[in-house]
Amino acid sequence: MGSLFRKMNASALLVGAIFLAACACAQEAAEAPVDPMAEMKDMMSSHKVMLDTLWVMITGMLVFWMNAGFGLVESGFCRSKNTVNILSKNFIVFAVSVLAFWVVGFGIMFADGNSLLGTQGFFLSGADNSPATGDDYQGVFASLNWTGVPLLAKFFFQLVFAGTAATIVSGAVAERIIYQTFIVFSFILVAFLYPITGHWIWGGGWLAGRGFLDFAGSTVVHSVGGWAALAGVIILGPRAGKYKADGGIQPIPGHNMTSAFLGCMILWLGWYGFNPGSTMAADPAAITLVAGTTTIAAATGLISGTLTIWLYSGKPDLGMAVNGCLAGLVAITAPCAFVGLGSAAIIGIVAGILVVFGVLFFDKIKCDDPVGALSVHLLNGIWGTLALGLFGTKESLADAGLGAGGHGLLLGGGASQLIAQIIGIAAVGVFTFVISLIVWVIIKGLMGLRVTPEEEMLGLDITEMGMEAYPGDSVRGGLLHD
Amino acid sequence: MGSLFRKMNASALLVGAIFLAACACAQEAAEAPVDPMAEMKDMMSSHKVMLDTLWVMITGMLVFWMNAGFGLVESGFCRSKNTVNILSKNFIVFAVSVLAFWVVGFGIMFADGNSLLGTQGFFLSGADNSPATGDDYQGVFASLNWTGVPLLAKFFFQLVFAGTAATIVSGAVAERIIYQTFIVFSFILVAFLYPITGHWIWGGGWLAGRGFLDFAGSTVVHSVGGWAALAGVIILGPRAGKYKADGGIQPIPGHNMTSAFLGCMILWLGWYGFNPGSTMAADPAAITLVAGTTTIAAATGLISGTLTIWLYSGKPDLGMAVNGCLAGLVAITAPCAFVGLGSAAIIGIVAGILVVFGVLFFDKIKCDDPVGALSVHLLNGIWGTLALGLFGTKESLADAGLGAGGHGLLLGGGASQLIAQIIGIAAVGVFTFVISLIVWVIIKGLMGLRVTPEEEMLGLDITEMGMEAYPGDSVRGGLLHD
Amino acid sequence: MGSLFRKMNASALLVGAIFLAACACAQEAAEAPVDPMAEMKDMMSSHKVMLDTLWVMITGMLVFWMNAGFGLVESGFCRSKNTVNILSKNFIVFAVSVLAFWVVGFGIMFADGNSLLGTQGFFLSGADNSPATGDDYQGVFASLNWTGVPLLAKFFFQLVFAGTAATIVSGAVAERIIYQTFIVFSFILVAFLYPITGHWIWGGGWLAGRGFLDFAGSTVVHSVGGWAALAGVIILGPRAGKYKADGGIQPIPGHNMTSAFLGCMILWLGWYGFNPGSTMAADPAAITLVAGTTTIAAATGLISGTLTIWLYSGKPDLGMAVNGCLAGLVAITAPCAFVGLGSAAIIGIVAGILVVFGVLFFDKIKCDDPVGALSVHLLNGIWGTLALGLFGTKESLADAGLGAGGHGLLLGGGASQLIAQIIGIAAVGVFTFVISLIVWVIIKGLMGLRVTPEEEMLGLDITEMGMEAYPGDSVRGGLLHD
Repeated sequence: MGSLFRKMNASALLVGAIFLAACACAQEAAEAPVDPMAEMKDMMSSHKVMLDTLWVMITGMLVFWMNAGFGLVESGFCRSKNTVNILSKNFIVFAVSVLAFWVVGFGIMFADGNSLLGTQGFFLSGADNSPATGDDYQGVFASLNWTGVPLLAKFFFQLVFAGTAATIVSGAVAERIIYQTFIVFSFILVAFLYPITGHWIWGGGWLAGRGFLDFAGSTVVHSVGGWAALAGVIILGPRAGKYKADGGIQPIPGHNMTSAFLGCMILWLGWYGFNPGSTMAADPAAITLVAGTTTIAAATGLISGTLTIWLYSGKPDLGMAVNGCLAGLVAITAPCAFVGLGSAAIIGIVAGILVVFGVLFFDKIKCDDPVGALSVHLLNGIWGTLALGLFGTKESLADAGLGAGGHGLLLGGGASQLIAQIIGIAAVGVFTFVISLIVWVIIKGLMGLRVTPEEEMLGLDITEMGMEAYPGDSVRGGLLHD
Repeated sequence: MGSLFRKMNASALLVGAIFLAACACAQEAAEAPVDPMAEMKDMMSSHKVMLDTLWVMITGMLVFWMNAGFGLVESGFCRSKNTVNILSKNFIVFAVSVLAFWVVGFGIMFADGNSLLGTQGFFLSGADNSPATGDDYQGVFASLNWTGVPLLAKFFFQLVFAGTAATIVSGAVAERIIYQTFIVFSFILVAFLYPITGHWIWGGGWLAGRGFLDFAGSTVVHSVGGWAALAGVIILGPRAGKYKADGGIQPIPGHNMTSAFLGCMILWLGWYGFNPGSTMAADPAAITLVAGTTTIAAATGLISGTLTIWLYSGKPDLGMAVNGCLAGLVAITAPCAFVGLGSAAIIGIVAGILVVFGVLFFDKIKCDDPVGALSVHLLNGIWGTLALGLFGTKESLADAGLGAGGHGLLLGGGASQLIAQIIGIAAVGVFTFVISLIVWVIIKGLMGLRVTPEEEMLGLDITEMGMEAYPGDSVRGGLLHD
Repeated sequence: MGSLFRKMNASALLVGAIFLAACACAQEAAEAPVDPMAEMKDMMSSHKVMLDTLWVMITGMLVFWMNAGFGLVESGFCRSKNTVNILSKNFIVFAVSVLAFWVVGFGIMFADGNSLLGTQGFFLSGADNSPATGDDYQGVFASLNWTGVPLLAKFFFQLVFAGTAATIVSGAVAERIIYQTFIVFSFILVAFLYPITGHWIWGGGWLAGRGFLDFAGSTVVHSVGGWAALAGVIILGPRAGKYKADGGIQPIPGHNMTSAFLGCMILWLGWYGFNPGSTMAADPAAITLVAGTTTIAAATGLISGTLTIWLYSGKPDLGMAVNGCLAGLVAITAPCAFVGLGSAAIIGIVAGILVVFGVLFFDKIKCDDPVGALSVHLLNGIWGTLALGLFGTKESLADAGLGAGGHGLLLGGGASQLIAQIIGIAAVGVFTFVISLIVWVIIKGLMGLRVTPEEEMLGLDITEMGMEAYPGDSVRGGLLHD
């Protein structure tokens, strides 16, 4: 609204004058017919860049909004004595991700380099390669040259994705990890681990070369977060009292189901940025297909998760409905642009079943994951990535340059595509899990990993954060401080 | 972000090359001047489709977001012992709506058929009629042919509307209905009832033919939900203890006004999708007019609801402020594109008064509606639909093909328009209320309608859902499970 | 979705036909080559207006959404006994702002008049000056002629900004002000005070003429709200028990940190409307730069606020993290379009430190501001406005017509720019603070300012609003009313 913009827009308003000139020019078409067309060309190209930029920025904002959703789901599923701690972690982890991804992560993930990692573009240095201008291309982020939005739009959209991976870890390690330890691990995850495997797949690395496909990140984002979380859960050990000496499992109900519900709705809304936004272009056919498959899978995951736990335990547990919905969303993330609505329904149904038995399974092997993050993000990240190979239509996979000529497996996917998916899942899983284990162990040695048993019993809010989420007066009419 | 999109966008990037070719071509204009213009034509048309699609999808996401708002308002206005139950209903009802509307509802509402209902297009089968291409049109959804966005965009936007009708019922029947009974009724509502009357009005049916107008759904969505809820409330009966033997009314305050406030703000935000999005096109004049009238009516409804209850009871009750705001939004929904800001202010003021006396009235006739849904959605859905006839300007109604030549009633509406509105309100009301009554009675016979008095006393969270919204530790420092 | 829109869009669908005609026409180019180009011209101009309108409306919706964020942050930081009161104030204040800005504020701020205030355009009267058409311009809002969106889009976007200024006051005067007194002050603020200084800067007034720059409102919105709040805090005095006789300060913790966290995330999301939307045009380069600087400053503010309080008090207080984040956002609001990412990082770091010591300072001088609004909005509004002079790059300031030829101060800003900034800060501060003091005193005399000590002790929810935010049953299993 500064006067700068008056000038900027004033020039846009010159369009009328330009056209009048163009038309006048056209009347003397015999002499110089080229100019008005060139004017039009420039304006049309700029309109397309505007359209794409609006879409990428608005969907990026929706993905940013998912941070609020993760904070509410995770804290809602945990006890009130750890609420401030969980919210604080989810809050600062995005800020740390901003720095980590700006300084080094974005360069490793998308800059030119080799098939393992990008080696330049730190601090977003290097020429902007956007709007992509064919031969005139000068930038160092060739792997993102397929979308014509400004470099800062690419950065913003990819940054909010990177932040998601770290928040996935947050829930799994909740209620016992030391605050600063989590921050340090998150920085390393977003600065190095996430971008490296991301480079393999979205940065023009070796998995992209092998035909591995992951439209919006079932593997790139969700499984990576899940593997890092699994390593953390193993090193940390379960919460005090969760697994009894007699082999029984102590349920630890969350403190606020309103938070969990609202958090899940925020995440679902955010997913309309995550998946449809991953077109990174205002492509009507792709956007609407992706929004459609995303909606169907979320709905069937929610219903199937609810029915599964209802049949299993006798009650339609809201926690499992939430996780079933999120599972459907995670699972459709990889294949959302390559399948139809019917396949999306099946993918969601399987996800909802998978997440219920996943939660039971991880409890059985004494992996204590307070919010079900491993079942939602890791298991269903894998399932979604496989589902792309199973359900992706030949046409869409052929369009994507892969799976063509495949001998239709199940509902039309190519066997070669399925093999590529399995290789990608395994490679990303082994790398992220092993390196995460090593990082967790090193951090444990350097600064400690877990709060003391006494701190855990009192709650991390008072001991780590020095405050309560809901001080006493909130339930005693507020008379305490007067 | 898969490589498919690199290709898709790469082709978009060919624009530059195409134009160079076009310009080169123009230089030989004597020979073949047509090609560059045809290229431009295609690109301009595609830009318009992109603009419309972005608008429809983003506003559709905002309408989806209203599900979170309904969940929070309804649970906030009810007791904590029923919170999980209410949130669960609002959560799963959208998923059920997705299936119902995909499988059958969308076809009944918008597909070709007769003046009573559409008879094809189930599972979105049939050719996509979009972008509409005039003579080349092949699809089965002719009634939506006026908007040029892809079929899946039309489906997404209409789906989130359909989901709203069911959530309206949810609040009115809260705190005593059996969980699965509500789900079954919701499925029937979204699969059959809502689409049938919707077909009459928006699907090219008989009410559209008679000139009935409802821009964004005061009747199509809100009154329909309200009539179905009224039938449910009558069959269900009031909550235990609400109406005393001596004729007194027991106020049952909601458990969480923070939820109610936040839910209302979410709904207001969502309404900027609901009303301005109903242009289903990036039409600057219409979008901004609708956003303006919507804002004014929400504001005046809020203020008038607050002042009315303040004068009546002596306190500026926040619950009535919330319902006044929602009443203004419901009332402006039908006329939002046909009136000016001044009329919108009056419509909102009346809505705010109406909702307060509506709540008092329904309590007087012992219709127990825990959240005021009948006063907000039914009464003000009717009021808004009438208001279109009273306040719609001659010009805008004439543009819409109706009310022309009308003898200006009150502020300019045509008498013929007002008659059309009354016919529509009555027809939709009788159909939806009678059929809903029948459906509620049948469901009651088949699977029961109401929880037992003991379950109602203990709360539906423990008895139906097997969990509490805020387990004890949330108020005892979280020490319970250690 | 009314049939009106079928017609509107049907005409849009005629595009194909028009182009066929255009092409046919082109074939007879020798006779009349002008028409198809003119058609194209009109369509391209209309596409640009659509793009700009979509951007302005969607970002305006995000700014509207900030009302929810302010309500949650402010109530979360206060005691539960005042929750309904605070939420009610934040709710109705936006409705009051709608009326105040529609009736008079918008005209004073943006309509033609003199260098001190606009003198026409009340009730949005006068011809729409949009889309701006150069010589054909007829409207009375010349100061907004630089953006080509419809007048109602300009009004909507500026309205949601105006509403923000009033909500800033709300937090500072919380827990002791009379409900209706706050409403009256808010009306005066939005109708007169905010628009007058706004006219000086964004309405073509004398500060704009002196080269003062404030891209999105560090001064226009945040400092103005802060100065008005400071006057109110001084007149009101501190809450009972806050400052002890022995000079000690009694901490009064907020009742709900979940609310505070969620509110802050809502505000951060809303800021992506506030800052990038202030381009009021779909300008890819500007939008993405502004989103980038906004993100960086929020992140560094959050981290620096957390580290500062951690070092100072030994705990990473979540309240200070929230205020650090908001401080970074307020500070980057003025310079967001004139600085790079590195400068944004520094601006945020300083903001985070400033807010912590600001809170300590205001407590020391016994200015009782329950939520830290003065430190967030006033101090950092000033800091951000200064930062534009310190860090604005010569190029961008020269583009904006100012600071050119400046002797690079610190990181490149011009000394002349810095002087202009200081003049603006002082002028706006003196005017708003003095007039606010006078208004507060007059209101105090006419209708009283502060609730009685007994009401303050019992809480404003029961005494002023007649209800509780979380009635007893919310923590006793909901058995109370059965």
